[in-house]
Amino acid sequence: MGDSLLSFGKIHIPKLDREIDQFIKSQATEAHLLDSMSYSLAAGGKKLRPLLLLGTIAFFNGQITRGAYQVAGALEMIHTYSLIHDDLPAMDNDELRRGKPTNHIVYGEGLAILAGDGLLTEAFHLVAEAELAAELKVSLLQRLARYAGTQGMIGGQVADIEGESQQLDLPALQSVHRRKTGALIKFAVEAGLLISHQEQQISDQMQIYAENFGIAFQIKDDLLDVIGDETVIGKKTGMDQALNKSTYTSLLGVEGAKVALEDHCQVAMSALEEVKLELKITQETSLLAELIQTLMV
Amino acid sequence: MGDSLLSFGKIHIPKLDREIDQFIKSQATEAHLLDSMSYSLAAGGKKLRPLLLLGTIAFFNGQITRGAYQVAGALEMIHTYSLIHDDLPAMDNDELRRGKPTNHIVYGEGLAILAGDGLLTEAFHLVAEAELAAELKVSLLQRLARYAGTQGMIGGQVADIEGESQQLDLPALQSVHRRKTGALIKFAVEAGLLISHQEQQISDQMQIYAENFGIAFQIKDDLLDVIGDETVIGKKTGMDQALNKSTYTSLLGVEGAKVALEDHCQVAMSALEEVKLELKITQETSLLAELIQTLMV
Repeated sequence: MGDSLLSFGKIHIPKLDREIDQFIKSQATEAHLLDSMSYSLAAGGKKLRPLLLLGTIAFFNGQITRGAYQVAGALEMIHTYSLIHDDLPAMDNDELRRGKPTNHIVYGEGLAILAGDGLLTEAFHLVAEAELAAELKVSLLQRLARYAGTQGMIGGQVADIEGESQQLDLPALQSVHRRKTGALIKFAVEAGLLISHQEQQISDQMQIYAENFGIAFQIKDDLLDVIGDETVIGKKTGMDQALNKSTYTSLLGVEGAKVALEDHCQVAMSALEEVKLELKITQETSLLAELIQTLMV
Repeated sequence: MGDSLLSFGKIHIPKLDREIDQFIKSQATEAHLLDSMSYSLAAGGKKLRPLLLLGTIAFFNGQITRGAYQVAGALEMIHTYSLIHDDLPAMDNDELRRGKPTNHIVYGEGLAILAGDGLLTEAFHLVAEAELAAELKVSLLQRLARYAGTQGMIGGQVADIEGESQQLDLPALQSVHRRKTGALIKFAVEAGLLISHQEQQISDQMQIYAENFGIAFQIKDDLLDVIGDETVIGKKTGMDQALNKSTYTSLLGVEGAKVALEDHCQVAMSALEEVKLELKITQETSLLAELIQTLMV
Protein backbone atom coordinates (compact mmCIF):
# COMPACT_ATOMS: atom_id res chain seq x y z
CA MET A 1 0.00 0.00 0.00
CA GLY A 2 1.40 3.39 -0.97
CA ASP A 3 2.43 5.90 1.68
CA SER A 4 -0.15 8.54 0.91
CA LEU A 5 -2.95 5.96 0.81
CA LEU A 6 -1.79 4.61 4.17
CA SER A 7 -1.76 8.02 5.81
CA PHE A 8 -5.03 9.01 4.12
CA GLY A 9 -6.62 5.87 5.58
CA LYS A 10 -5.18 6.57 9.01
CA ILE A 11 -6.81 9.98 9.05
CA HIS A 12 -10.14 9.19 7.48
CA ILE A 13 -11.07 5.59 8.39
CA PRO A 14 -11.45 6.32 12.13
CA LYS A 15 -13.73 9.26 11.31
CA LEU A 16 -15.74 7.11 8.96
CA ASP A 17 -16.04 4.33 11.54
CA ARG A 18 -17.18 6.78 14.19
CA GLU A 19 -19.88 8.15 11.89
CA ILE A 20 -21.23 4.66 11.16
CA ASP A 21 -20.98 3.54 14.76
CA GLN A 22 -22.76 6.57 16.20
CA PHE A 23 -25.53 6.31 13.68
CA ILE A 24 -26.35 2.64 14.08
CA LYS A 25 -26.22 2.98 17.87
CA SER A 26 -28.64 5.90 17.72
CA GLN A 27 -31.09 3.79 15.71
CA ALA A 28 -30.91 0.49 17.56
CA THR A 29 -33.48 -0.68 20.08
CA GLU A 30 -32.41 -4.33 20.34
CA ALA A 31 -28.99 -5.21 21.78
CA HIS A 32 -28.49 -8.46 19.85
CA LEU A 33 -29.37 -6.82 16.57
CA LEU A 34 -26.86 -4.03 17.17
CA ASP A 35 -24.20 -6.60 18.16
CA SER A 36 -24.78 -8.56 14.99
CA MET A 37 -24.58 -5.47 12.76
CA SER A 38 -21.48 -4.17 14.57
CA TYR A 39 -19.75 -7.55 14.40
CA SER A 40 -19.71 -7.58 10.60
CA LEU A 41 -18.90 -3.88 10.31
CA ALA A 42 -15.91 -4.35 12.61
CA ALA A 43 -14.70 -7.54 10.93
CA GLY A 44 -11.68 -5.80 9.45
CA GLY A 45 -12.62 -4.95 5.89
CA LYS A 46 -10.23 -2.85 3.87
CA LYS A 47 -12.84 -0.07 3.47
CA LEU A 48 -11.98 0.03 -0.21
CA ARG A 49 -15.29 1.56 -1.33
CA PRO A 50 -15.35 4.43 1.21
CA LEU A 51 -11.66 5.12 0.48
CA LEU A 52 -12.45 5.26 -3.22
CA LEU A 53 -15.30 7.71 -2.56
CA LEU A 54 -13.25 9.94 -0.25
CA GLY A 55 -10.18 9.58 -2.50
CA THR A 56 -12.22 10.82 -5.47
CA ILE A 57 -13.21 13.92 -3.52
CA ALA A 58 -9.57 14.49 -2.52
CA PHE A 59 -8.41 14.00 -6.13
CA PHE A 60 -10.54 16.97 -7.17
CA ASN A 61 -9.43 18.98 -4.14
CA GLY A 62 -12.93 18.78 -2.71
CA GLN A 63 -13.52 19.16 0.99
CA ILE A 64 -14.17 15.98 2.96
CA THR A 65 -17.11 17.16 5.01
CA ARG A 66 -19.27 15.28 7.51
CA GLY A 67 -21.76 14.63 4.70
CA ALA A 68 -19.02 12.84 2.72
CA TYR A 69 -18.26 10.51 5.65
CA GLN A 70 -21.96 9.81 6.03
CA VAL A 71 -22.37 8.79 2.39
CA ALA A 72 -19.13 6.77 2.50
CA GLY A 73 -20.41 5.12 5.69
CA ALA A 74 -23.70 4.21 4.04
CA LEU A 75 -21.76 2.63 1.16
CA GLU A 76 -19.74 0.49 3.57
CA MET A 77 -22.96 -0.52 5.35
CA ILE A 78 -24.50 -1.69 2.07
CA HIS A 79 -21.35 -3.60 1.16
CA THR A 80 -21.40 -5.24 4.62
CA TYR A 81 -25.09 -6.21 4.39
CA SER A 82 -24.42 -7.84 1.02
CA LEU A 83 -21.60 -9.94 2.51
CA ILE A 84 -23.80 -11.10 5.43
CA HIS A 85 -26.59 -12.20 3.09
CA ASP A 86 -24.21 -13.73 0.51
CA ASP A 87 -22.56 -15.87 3.20
CA LEU A 88 -25.87 -17.43 4.31
CA PRO A 89 -26.35 -21.20 3.88
CA ALA A 90 -29.06 -20.56 1.24
CA MET A 91 -26.49 -18.63 -0.84
CA ASP A 92 -22.70 -19.15 -0.76
CA ASN A 93 -22.76 -21.01 2.60
CA ASP A 94 -19.47 -19.53 3.83
CA GLU A 95 -18.40 -20.07 7.42
CA LEU A 96 -15.34 -17.86 7.33
CA ARG A 97 -14.95 -14.24 6.18
CA ARG A 98 -11.91 -12.05 6.73
CA GLY A 99 -10.54 -14.76 9.02
CA LYS A 100 -13.54 -14.77 11.36
CA PRO A 101 -16.72 -16.85 11.60
CA THR A 102 -19.43 -15.38 9.38
CA ASN A 103 -22.38 -13.53 10.90
CA HIS A 104 -24.88 -16.40 10.85
CA ILE A 105 -22.34 -18.75 12.45
CA VAL A 106 -22.10 -16.39 15.43
CA TYR A 107 -25.65 -15.00 15.63
CA GLY A 108 -27.81 -17.57 13.86
CA GLU A 109 -29.48 -17.26 10.47
CA GLY A 110 -32.54 -15.29 11.59
CA LEU A 111 -30.56 -12.52 13.21
CA ALA A 112 -28.05 -12.48 10.33
CA ILE A 113 -30.86 -11.89 7.83
CA LEU A 114 -32.29 -9.10 10.00
CA ALA A 115 -28.84 -7.55 10.59
CA GLY A 116 -28.43 -7.39 6.81
CA ASP A 117 -31.89 -5.86 6.40
CA GLY A 118 -31.01 -3.39 9.15
CA LEU A 119 -27.72 -2.32 7.58
CA LEU A 120 -29.40 -1.86 4.20
CA THR A 121 -32.27 0.20 5.60
CA GLU A 122 -30.06 2.30 7.87
CA ALA A 123 -27.69 3.00 4.97
CA PHE A 124 -30.49 4.76 3.10
CA HIS A 125 -31.47 6.39 6.36
CA LEU A 126 -27.96 7.75 6.90
CA VAL A 127 -27.82 9.30 3.42
CA ALA A 128 -31.31 10.78 3.89
CA GLU A 129 -30.15 12.36 7.19
CA ALA A 130 -26.73 13.43 5.89
CA GLU A 131 -25.50 17.02 6.16
CA LEU A 132 -25.88 17.73 2.46
CA ALA A 133 -28.33 19.68 0.32
CA ALA A 134 -31.67 17.96 -0.36
CA GLU A 135 -31.18 17.88 -4.15
CA LEU A 136 -27.77 16.26 -3.77
CA LYS A 137 -29.12 13.70 -1.31
CA VAL A 138 -31.89 12.73 -3.72
CA SER A 139 -29.33 12.26 -6.53
CA LEU A 140 -27.12 10.16 -4.27
CA LEU A 141 -30.06 8.04 -3.04
CA GLN A 142 -31.26 7.43 -6.61
CA ARG A 143 -27.84 6.16 -7.63
CA LEU A 144 -27.18 4.19 -4.46
CA ALA A 145 -30.50 2.35 -4.81
CA ARG A 146 -29.98 1.80 -8.55
CA TYR A 147 -26.49 0.38 -8.13
CA ALA A 148 -27.33 -1.68 -5.02
CA GLY A 149 -30.70 -2.81 -6.41
CA THR A 150 -32.09 -5.31 -8.86
CA GLN A 151 -30.36 -3.92 -11.94
CA GLY A 152 -27.14 -3.61 -9.93
CA MET A 153 -25.67 -5.64 -7.09
CA ILE A 154 -28.72 -7.79 -6.31
CA GLY A 155 -29.23 -8.69 -9.97
CA GLY A 156 -25.54 -9.56 -10.18
CA GLN A 157 -25.79 -11.84 -7.16
CA VAL A 158 -28.77 -13.67 -8.71
CA ALA A 159 -26.86 -14.04 -11.99
CA ASP A 160 -23.81 -15.28 -10.08
CA ILE A 161 -25.79 -17.98 -8.23
CA GLU A 162 -27.60 -19.05 -11.40
CA GLY A 163 -24.31 -19.07 -13.31
CA GLU A 164 -22.82 -21.65 -10.95
CA SER A 165 -24.60 -24.42 -12.76
CA GLN A 166 -23.41 -23.42 -16.24
CA GLN A 167 -20.31 -22.47 -18.20
CA LEU A 168 -20.22 -18.70 -18.78
CA ASP A 169 -18.22 -17.00 -21.50
CA LEU A 170 -16.22 -13.83 -20.88
CA PRO A 171 -18.99 -11.32 -21.76
CA ALA A 172 -21.48 -13.18 -19.53
CA LEU A 173 -18.95 -13.28 -16.69
CA GLN A 174 -18.30 -9.56 -17.06
CA SER A 175 -22.03 -8.86 -17.03
CA VAL A 176 -22.33 -10.69 -13.69
CA HIS A 177 -19.44 -8.83 -12.10
CA ARG A 178 -20.21 -5.44 -13.59
CA ARG A 179 -23.33 -5.65 -11.42
CA LYS A 180 -22.28 -7.78 -8.46
CA THR A 181 -19.06 -5.99 -7.53
CA GLY A 182 -18.69 -3.24 -10.16
CA ALA A 183 -21.87 -1.35 -9.31
CA LEU A 184 -20.87 -0.27 -5.79
CA ILE A 185 -17.36 0.63 -7.00
CA LYS A 186 -18.97 2.80 -9.64
CA PHE A 187 -21.17 4.37 -6.99
CA ALA A 188 -18.09 5.22 -4.91
CA VAL A 189 -16.53 7.18 -7.79
CA GLU A 190 -19.78 8.82 -8.92
CA ALA A 191 -20.72 9.82 -5.38
CA GLY A 192 -17.27 11.39 -4.95
CA LEU A 193 -17.82 13.34 -8.17
CA LEU A 194 -21.32 14.46 -7.15
CA ILE A 195 -20.21 15.54 -3.67
CA SER A 196 -17.28 17.53 -5.09
CA HIS A 197 -19.50 18.99 -7.84
CA GLN A 198 -17.41 17.49 -10.64
CA GLU A 199 -20.13 15.46 -12.32
CA GLN A 200 -20.07 17.28 -15.63
CA GLN A 201 -16.66 17.84 -17.13
CA ILE A 202 -14.74 14.65 -16.48
CA SER A 203 -17.37 12.03 -16.05
CA ASP A 204 -16.43 9.95 -19.12
CA GLN A 205 -12.82 9.36 -18.10
CA MET A 206 -13.83 8.73 -14.52
CA GLN A 207 -16.40 6.16 -15.72
CA ILE A 208 -13.59 4.37 -17.55
CA TYR A 209 -11.51 4.47 -14.37
CA ALA A 210 -14.37 3.07 -12.26
CA GLU A 211 -15.34 0.36 -14.78
CA ASN A 212 -11.80 -0.92 -15.12
CA PHE A 213 -11.20 -0.69 -11.39
CA GLY A 214 -14.24 -2.91 -10.88
CA ILE A 215 -13.11 -5.53 -13.41
CA ALA A 216 -9.53 -5.52 -12.11
CA PHE A 217 -10.85 -5.92 -8.57
CA GLN A 218 -12.80 -9.03 -9.57
CA ILE A 219 -9.91 -10.58 -11.50
CA LYS A 220 -7.69 -10.06 -8.45
CA ASP A 221 -10.35 -11.73 -6.27
CA ASP A 222 -10.53 -14.71 -8.63
CA LEU A 223 -6.72 -14.95 -8.74
CA LEU A 224 -6.48 -14.93 -4.94
CA ASP A 225 -8.90 -17.85 -4.80
CA VAL A 226 -6.35 -19.85 -6.82
CA ILE A 227 -2.94 -18.50 -5.81
CA GLY A 228 -3.75 -16.71 -2.51
CA ASP A 229 -2.72 -17.70 1.01
CA GLU A 230 -5.71 -18.55 3.23
CA THR A 231 -4.02 -17.14 6.31
CA VAL A 232 -3.45 -13.81 4.59
CA ILE A 233 -6.81 -13.36 2.84
CA GLY A 234 -8.83 -14.81 5.74
CA LYS A 235 -11.10 -17.14 3.80
CA LYS A 236 -10.93 -20.56 2.23
CA THR A 237 -9.28 -20.67 -1.18
CA GLY A 238 -10.10 -23.05 -4.00
CA MET A 239 -13.83 -22.49 -3.44
CA ASP A 240 -14.58 -21.37 -7.00
CA GLN A 241 -13.07 -24.50 -8.48
CA ALA A 242 -14.82 -26.72 -5.92
CA LEU A 243 -18.14 -25.12 -6.96
CA ASN A 244 -17.16 -25.43 -10.63
CA LYS A 245 -17.76 -21.70 -10.99
CA SER A 246 -16.83 -19.72 -14.08
CA THR A 247 -14.12 -17.23 -13.13
CA TYR A 248 -11.49 -15.13 -14.86
CA THR A 249 -8.92 -17.80 -14.02
CA SER A 250 -11.06 -20.69 -15.26
CA LEU A 251 -11.67 -18.83 -18.54
CA LEU A 252 -8.24 -17.27 -19.07
CA GLY A 253 -5.91 -19.42 -16.96
CA VAL A 254 -3.78 -17.93 -14.17
CA GLU A 255 -1.30 -16.28 -16.55
CA GLY A 256 -4.06 -14.98 -18.80
CA ALA A 257 -5.90 -13.55 -15.81
CA LYS A 258 -2.72 -11.79 -14.66
CA VAL A 259 -2.33 -10.19 -18.09
CA ALA A 260 -5.99 -9.10 -18.10
CA LEU A 261 -5.60 -7.65 -14.61
CA GLU A 262 -2.55 -5.68 -15.72
CA ASP A 263 -4.43 -4.43 -18.80
CA HIS A 264 -7.45 -3.18 -16.86
CA CYS A 265 -5.21 -1.48 -14.29
CA GLN A 266 -3.34 0.28 -17.12
CA VAL A 267 -6.56 1.48 -18.75
CA ALA A 268 -7.74 2.85 -15.40
CA MET A 269 -4.38 4.59 -14.87
CA SER A 270 -4.46 6.16 -18.35
CA ALA A 271 -7.97 7.50 -17.71
CA LEU A 272 -6.70 9.14 -14.53
CA GLU A 273 -3.77 10.67 -16.45
CA GLU A 274 -6.22 12.12 -18.98
CA VAL A 275 -8.21 13.74 -16.18
CA LYS A 276 -5.04 15.14 -14.62
CA LEU A 277 -3.98 16.65 -17.95
CA GLU A 278 -7.43 18.10 -18.54
CA LEU A 279 -7.66 19.66 -15.10
CA LYS A 280 -3.94 20.55 -14.97
CA ILE A 281 -3.46 18.53 -11.79
CA THR A 282 0.31 18.37 -11.25
CA GLN A 283 0.60 16.09 -8.19
CA GLU A 284 2.96 13.18 -8.82
CA THR A 285 0.77 10.46 -7.31
CA SER A 286 -2.81 10.28 -6.18
CA LEU A 287 -4.84 8.06 -3.91
CA LEU A 288 -6.85 6.93 -6.90
CA ALA A 289 -3.65 5.72 -8.60
CA GLU A 290 -2.44 4.06 -5.40
CA LEU A 291 -5.78 2.27 -5.04
CA ILE A 292 -5.25 0.79 -8.49
CA GLN A 293 -1.74 -0.25 -7.50
CA THR A 294 -3.13 -2.28 -4.58
CA LEU A 295 -4.82 -4.51 -7.16
CA MET A 296 -1.68 -5.25 -9.16
CA VAL A 297 0.11 -8.54 -8.52
CA MET B 1 -66.03 -3.09 3.87
CA GLY B 2 -67.88 0.20 3.47
CA ASP B 3 -69.11 1.35 0.09
CA SER B 4 -66.88 4.36 -0.26
CA LEU B 5 -63.81 2.34 0.77
CA LEU B 6 -64.72 -0.29 -1.80
CA SER B 7 -65.10 2.21 -4.61
CA PHE B 8 -61.99 4.11 -3.51
CA GLY B 9 -60.03 0.86 -3.67
CA LYS B 10 -61.45 0.03 -7.09
CA ILE B 11 -60.22 3.33 -8.47
CA HIS B 12 -56.86 3.57 -6.77
CA ILE B 13 -55.51 0.04 -6.26
CA PRO B 14 -55.13 -0.68 -10.00
CA LYS B 15 -53.22 2.59 -10.43
CA LEU B 16 -51.04 1.74 -7.46
CA ASP B 17 -50.36 -1.76 -8.79
CA ARG B 18 -49.44 -0.40 -12.20
CA GLU B 19 -46.97 2.05 -10.67
CA ILE B 20 -45.24 -0.72 -8.68
CA ASP B 21 -45.29 -3.16 -11.57
CA GLN B 22 -43.83 -0.73 -14.11
CA PHE B 23 -41.11 0.32 -11.74
CA ILE B 24 -39.88 -3.11 -10.72
CA LYS B 25 -39.95 -4.27 -14.36
CA SER B 26 -37.88 -1.26 -15.38
CA GLN B 27 -35.25 -2.14 -12.77
CA ALA B 28 -35.00 -5.90 -13.22
CA THR B 29 -32.26 -7.64 -15.16
CA GLU B 30 -32.91 -11.20 -13.97
CA ALA B 31 -36.18 -12.96 -14.89
CA HIS B 32 -36.34 -15.26 -11.85
CA LEU B 33 -35.73 -12.39 -9.47
CA LEU B 34 -38.53 -10.36 -11.03
CA ASP B 35 -40.84 -13.39 -10.90
CA SER B 36 -40.12 -13.92 -7.24
CA MET B 37 -40.73 -10.26 -6.35
CA SER B 38 -43.90 -10.10 -8.46
CA TYR B 39 -45.25 -13.34 -6.97
CA SER B 40 -45.37 -11.92 -3.45
CA LEU B 41 -46.59 -8.50 -4.57
CA ALA B 42 -49.47 -10.15 -6.45
CA ALA B 43 -50.36 -12.57 -3.65
CA GLY B 44 -53.59 -10.75 -2.89
CA GLY B 45 -52.84 -8.51 0.06
CA LYS B 46 -55.51 -6.05 1.14
CA LYS B 47 -53.24 -3.06 0.41
CA LEU B 48 -54.18 -1.67 3.79
CA ARG B 49 -51.10 0.53 4.16
CA PRO B 50 -51.29 2.20 0.72
CA LEU B 51 -55.06 2.70 1.20
CA LEU B 52 -54.38 4.34 4.55
CA LEU B 53 -51.81 6.64 2.93
CA LEU B 54 -54.04 7.57 -0.01
CA GLY B 55 -57.10 7.77 2.28
CA THR B 56 -55.29 10.26 4.50
CA ILE B 57 -54.61 12.47 1.49
CA ALA B 58 -58.27 12.19 0.43
CA PHE B 59 -59.46 12.99 3.97
CA PHE B 60 -57.71 16.36 3.74
CA ASN B 61 -58.97 16.90 0.22
CA GLY B 62 -55.44 16.59 -1.10
CA GLN B 63 -54.80 15.57 -4.68
CA ILE B 64 -53.73 12.00 -5.29
CA THR B 65 -50.89 12.61 -7.71
CA ARG B 66 -48.49 10.19 -9.33
CA GLY B 67 -46.01 10.95 -6.53
CA ALA B 68 -48.57 9.75 -3.97
CA TYR B 69 -49.00 6.42 -5.78
CA GLN B 70 -45.23 6.04 -5.94
CA VAL B 71 -44.79 6.54 -2.19
CA ALA B 72 -47.77 4.28 -1.44
CA GLY B 73 -46.25 1.69 -3.78
CA ALA B 74 -42.91 1.86 -1.99
CA LEU B 75 -44.71 1.30 1.31
CA GLU B 76 -46.42 -1.81 -0.05
CA MET B 77 -43.06 -3.06 -1.38
CA ILE B 78 -41.47 -2.69 2.06
CA HIS B 79 -44.40 -4.46 3.69
CA THR B 80 -44.09 -7.28 1.14
CA TYR B 81 -40.31 -7.67 1.64
CA SER B 82 -40.88 -7.94 5.40
CA LEU B 83 -43.40 -10.75 4.88
CA ILE B 84 -41.02 -12.68 2.59
CA HIS B 85 -38.17 -12.49 5.11
CA ASP B 86 -40.43 -13.16 8.14
CA ASP B 87 -41.76 -16.33 6.50
CA LEU B 88 -38.26 -17.83 6.00
CA PRO B 89 -37.38 -21.06 7.84
CA ALA B 90 -34.83 -19.16 9.97
CA MET B 91 -37.64 -16.88 11.20
CA ASP B 92 -41.35 -17.83 11.42
CA ASN B 93 -41.00 -20.79 9.03
CA ASP B 94 -44.41 -20.29 7.39
CA GLU B 95 -45.31 -22.28 4.31
CA LEU B 96 -48.61 -20.57 3.60
CA ARG B 97 -49.42 -16.87 3.28
CA ARG B 98 -52.70 -15.41 2.00
CA GLY B 99 -53.71 -18.95 0.97
CA LYS B 100 -50.65 -19.47 -1.25
CA PRO B 101 -47.26 -21.12 -0.74
CA THR B 102 -44.78 -18.63 0.67
CA ASN B 103 -42.03 -17.18 -1.50
CA HIS B 104 -39.22 -19.51 -0.40
CA ILE B 105 -41.45 -22.56 -0.92
CA VAL B 106 -41.89 -21.56 -4.57
CA TYR B 107 -38.50 -19.96 -5.38
CA GLY B 108 -36.12 -21.39 -2.78
CA GLU B 109 -34.56 -19.61 0.17
CA GLY B 110 -31.72 -17.90 -1.68
CA LEU B 111 -33.97 -16.20 -4.21
CA ALA B 112 -36.54 -15.35 -1.50
CA ILE B 113 -33.87 -13.53 0.52
CA LEU B 114 -32.72 -11.66 -2.61
CA ALA B 115 -36.30 -10.84 -3.66
CA GLY B 116 -36.82 -9.28 -0.21
CA ASP B 117 -33.56 -7.34 -0.51
CA GLY B 118 -34.66 -6.22 -3.97
CA LEU B 119 -38.08 -5.01 -2.86
CA LEU B 120 -36.55 -3.11 0.05
CA THR B 121 -33.90 -1.43 -2.11
CA GLU B 122 -36.28 -0.63 -4.96
CA ALA B 123 -38.79 0.85 -2.49
CA PHE B 124 -36.24 3.50 -1.50
CA HIS B 125 -35.38 3.86 -5.17
CA LEU B 126 -39.01 4.49 -6.09
CA VAL B 127 -39.41 7.24 -3.47
CA ALA B 128 -36.10 8.80 -4.55
CA GLU B 129 -37.35 8.86 -8.17
CA ALA B 130 -40.91 9.95 -7.30
CA GLU B 131 -42.53 13.00 -8.91
CA LEU B 132 -42.31 15.10 -5.76
CA ALA B 133 -40.14 18.01 -4.58
CA ALA B 134 -36.66 17.06 -3.37
CA GLU B 135 -37.21 18.38 0.18
CA LEU B 136 -40.41 16.37 0.52
CA LYS B 137 -38.72 13.22 -0.80
CA VAL B 138 -35.92 13.58 1.73
CA SER B 139 -38.48 13.93 4.56
CA LEU B 140 -40.37 10.88 3.33
CA LEU B 141 -37.19 8.83 2.94
CA GLN B 142 -36.00 9.76 6.43
CA ARG B 143 -39.28 8.59 7.94
CA LEU B 144 -39.64 5.50 5.78
CA ALA B 145 -36.15 4.34 6.75
CA ARG B 146 -36.68 5.20 10.42
CA TYR B 147 -39.98 3.32 10.64
CA ALA B 148 -38.84 0.36 8.55
CA GLY B 149 -35.41 0.23 10.20
CA THR B 150 -33.78 -0.98 13.37
CA GLN B 151 -35.73 1.27 15.73
CA GLY B 152 -38.92 0.43 13.83
CA MET B 153 -40.08 -2.67 12.02
CA ILE B 154 -36.78 -4.60 12.05
CA GLY B 155 -36.27 -3.95 15.77
CA GLY B 156 -39.84 -5.11 16.39
CA GLN B 157 -39.26 -8.31 14.47
CA VAL B 158 -36.13 -9.05 16.52
CA ALA B 159 -38.06 -8.35 19.74
CA ASP B 160 -40.90 -10.58 18.51
CA ILE B 161 -38.59 -13.52 17.80
CA GLU B 162 -36.74 -13.10 21.09
CA GLY B 163 -40.06 -12.74 22.94
CA GLU B 164 -41.18 -16.19 21.78
CA SER B 165 -39.16 -17.86 24.49
CA GLN B 166 -40.54 -15.73 27.34
CA GLN B 167 -43.78 -14.47 28.82
CA LEU B 168 -44.31 -10.78 27.91
CA ASP B 169 -46.55 -8.38 29.83
CA LEU B 170 -48.87 -5.95 28.07
CA PRO B 171 -46.43 -3.00 27.87
CA ALA B 172 -43.70 -5.29 26.48
CA LEU B 173 -46.13 -6.75 23.94
CA GLN B 174 -47.21 -3.27 22.87
CA SER B 175 -43.56 -2.23 22.49
CA VAL B 176 -42.99 -5.14 20.12
CA HIS B 177 -46.03 -4.38 17.99
CA ARG B 178 -45.67 -0.60 18.05
CA ARG B 179 -42.51 -1.29 16.06
CA LYS B 180 -43.25 -4.49 14.17
CA THR B 181 -46.63 -3.55 12.69
CA GLY B 182 -47.36 -0.08 14.08
CA ALA B 183 -44.41 1.69 12.51
CA LEU B 184 -45.43 1.21 8.86
CA ILE B 185 -49.05 2.11 9.69
CA LYS B 186 -47.77 5.29 11.29
CA PHE B 187 -45.70 5.96 8.18
CA ALA B 188 -48.81 5.59 6.00
CA VAL B 189 -50.64 8.31 7.93
CA GLU B 190 -47.63 10.61 8.29
CA ALA B 191 -46.73 10.29 4.62
CA GLY B 192 -50.32 11.16 3.71
CA LEU B 193 -50.08 14.26 5.91
CA LEU B 194 -46.71 15.27 4.46
CA ILE B 195 -47.85 14.81 0.86
CA SER B 196 -51.03 16.84 1.47
CA HIS B 197 -49.06 19.49 3.40
CA GLN B 198 -51.05 18.96 6.61
CA GLU B 199 -48.16 18.02 8.85
CA GLN B 200 -48.49 20.96 11.26
CA GLN B 201 -51.98 21.65 12.52
CA ILE B 202 -53.55 18.28 13.15
CA SER B 203 -50.61 16.01 13.68
CA ASP B 204 -51.35 15.18 17.34
CA GLN B 205 -54.84 13.83 16.70
CA MET B 206 -53.68 11.99 13.61
CA GLN B 207 -50.86 10.42 15.64
CA ILE B 208 -53.49 9.13 18.08
CA TYR B 209 -55.49 7.77 15.16
CA ALA B 210 -52.44 6.01 13.71
CA GLU B 211 -51.21 4.60 17.04
CA ASN B 212 -54.60 3.15 17.92
CA PHE B 213 -55.13 1.87 14.40
CA GLY B 214 -51.86 -0.01 14.73
CA ILE B 215 -52.73 -1.57 18.07
CA ALA B 216 -56.28 -2.47 16.94
CA PHE B 217 -54.81 -4.04 13.80
CA GLN B 218 -52.54 -6.28 15.88
CA ILE B 219 -55.29 -7.29 18.31
CA LYS B 220 -57.48 -8.25 15.34
CA ASP B 221 -54.60 -10.30 13.91
CA ASP B 222 -54.15 -12.11 17.23
CA LEU B 223 -57.91 -12.72 17.50
CA LEU B 224 -58.07 -14.17 13.99
CA ASP B 225 -55.32 -16.62 14.91
CA VAL B 226 -57.68 -17.97 17.61
CA ILE B 227 -61.21 -17.52 16.24
CA GLY B 228 -60.54 -17.04 12.51
CA ASP B 229 -61.36 -19.40 9.67
CA GLU B 230 -58.24 -20.71 7.89
CA THR B 231 -60.01 -20.80 4.52
CA VAL B 232 -60.98 -17.13 4.84
CA ILE B 233 -57.74 -15.66 6.20
CA GLY B 234 -55.51 -17.89 4.06
CA LYS B 235 -53.03 -19.03 6.68
CA LYS B 236 -52.84 -21.58 9.45
CA THR B 237 -54.57 -20.55 12.68
CA GLY B 238 -53.53 -21.55 16.19
CA MET B 239 -49.87 -20.83 15.35
CA ASP B 240 -49.32 -18.37 18.20
CA GLN B 241 -50.51 -20.84 20.80
CA ALA B 242 -48.47 -23.64 19.25
CA LEU B 243 -45.39 -21.41 19.52
CA ASN B 244 -46.41 -20.44 23.07
CA LYS B 245 -46.25 -16.80 21.95
CA SER B 246 -47.47 -13.90 24.06
CA THR B 247 -50.41 -12.28 22.26
CA TYR B 248 -53.31 -10.00 23.13
CA THR B 249 -55.55 -13.06 23.43
CA SER B 250 -53.11 -14.98 25.63
CA LEU B 251 -52.79 -11.97 27.94
CA LEU B 252 -56.40 -10.71 27.90
CA GLY B 253 -58.43 -13.75 26.83
CA VAL B 254 -60.63 -13.70 23.72
CA GLU B 255 -63.34 -11.56 25.30
CA GLY B 256 -60.81 -9.19 26.87
CA ALA B 257 -59.06 -8.82 23.52
CA LYS B 258 -62.40 -8.01 21.85
CA VAL B 259 -63.03 -5.28 24.41
CA ALA B 260 -59.52 -3.86 23.93
CA LEU B 261 -59.99 -3.92 20.15
CA GLU B 262 -63.28 -2.01 20.48
CA ASP B 263 -61.62 0.52 22.80
CA HIS B 264 -58.72 1.25 20.47
CA CYS B 265 -61.06 1.58 17.49
CA GLN B 266 -63.19 4.05 19.46
CA VAL B 267 -60.17 6.14 20.45
CA ALA B 268 -59.08 6.26 16.81
CA MET B 269 -62.60 7.26 15.72
CA SER B 270 -62.77 10.03 18.33
CA ALA B 271 -59.43 11.40 17.17
CA LEU B 272 -60.80 11.55 13.63
CA GLU B 273 -63.94 13.35 14.86
CA GLU B 274 -61.73 15.93 16.58
CA VAL B 275 -59.88 16.56 13.36
CA LYS B 276 -63.15 16.89 11.45
CA LEU B 277 -64.45 19.44 13.97
CA GLU B 278 -61.22 21.37 13.90
CA LEU B 279 -61.09 21.51 10.11
CA LYS B 280 -64.88 21.85 9.74
CA ILE B 281 -65.06 18.73 7.59
CA THR B 282 -68.77 17.93 7.24
CA GLN B 283 -68.74 14.67 5.29
CA GLU B 284 -70.75 11.95 7.04
CA THR B 285 -68.21 9.14 6.62
CA SER B 286 -64.60 8.97 5.56
CA LEU B 287 -62.28 6.29 4.28
CA LEU B 288 -60.22 6.64 7.42
CA ALA B 289 -63.29 5.81 9.52
CA GLU B 290 -64.22 2.93 7.23
CA LEU B 291 -60.70 1.54 7.50
CA ILE B 292 -61.12 1.44 11.28
CA GLN B 293 -64.49 -0.29 10.84
CA THR B 294 -62.81 -3.11 8.89
CA LEU B 295 -60.92 -3.98 12.09
CA MET B 296 -64.01 -4.25 14.29
CA VAL B 297 -65.44 -7.71 15.00
